[in-house]
Amino acid sequence: MALDEQVRKIIQGRNFAFLATVGSDGSPQVTPVWVDEENGYILVNTAAGRVKERNTRRNPAVAVAVPEWSNPYRYAYVRGRVVEWITGPKADEHIDKLAVKYTGEKFKWRRPGDVRVIMKIKPDQAKVLG
Amino acid sequence: MALDEQVRKIIQGRNFAFLATVGSDGSPQVTPVWVDEENGYILVNTAAGRVKERNTRRNPAVAVAVPEWSNPYRYAYVRGRVVEWITGPKADEHIDKLAVKYTGEKFKWRRPGDVRVIMKIKPDQAKVLG
Repeated sequence: MALDEQVRKIIQGRNFAFLATVGSDGSPQVTPVWVDEENGYILVNTAAGRVKERNTRRNPAVAVAVPEWSNPYRYAYVRGRVVEWITGPKADEHIDKLAVKYTGEKFKWRRPGDVRVIMKIKPDQAKVLG
Repeated sequence: MALDEQVRKIIQGRNFAFLATVGSDGSPQVTPVWVDEENGYILVNTAAGRVKERNTRRNPAVAVAVPEWSNPYRYAYVRGRVVEWITGPKADEHIDKLAVKYTGEKFKWRRPGDVRVIMKIKPDQAKVLG
């Protein structure tokens, strides 16, 4: 699915995303994340072992709300599922790219032993609301 | 559970909340909402029939992230469940109270036929992260 231009614009902006996943007990989890898009996929980057990675390995369904920070009544809303978990050099480059977008410099919070993971989300639905 | 002072402070501020619920197909939903707290409960106000109300009637588990708008790396995080859905005059007063908090004036987006519903959330876990 190609992303609508308005959805892309919000995601390309320096706007935080709120990613919801579902745990093994059927209860939801929501967490603020940096976000990016590439060729119609939504990309999030986490460290291996975090709740959002573990949840999506079990149940890949996610929802993502990305408010325009200057006017949060308007937000991009994506429902979809994680179709790939990518580790290795590509994931390390990607966290730096996101860090530059959001902080102006490369990622500086990496902890020894952290394995970065791109969660690649295929949207089933993507629209701007509000 | 009495709410931690730091959690209360973020929720009492004019910060938007991101409420996650789970649908009948086991996929998550997330939506920006106004938020409030009272006697240790988290209060959200919606219109009857919206997805978040329907989802929680089926599965009351919710998660709520409330970022400090000026520094979204710090956020209040609540996991819990909806224990009451309150309609009637109390819900109508409550949406006005929230509107005053967030917009400075009473709620002006009510549509004919809308029934307001307070979703009263009992936290099982509430903390400040980041």
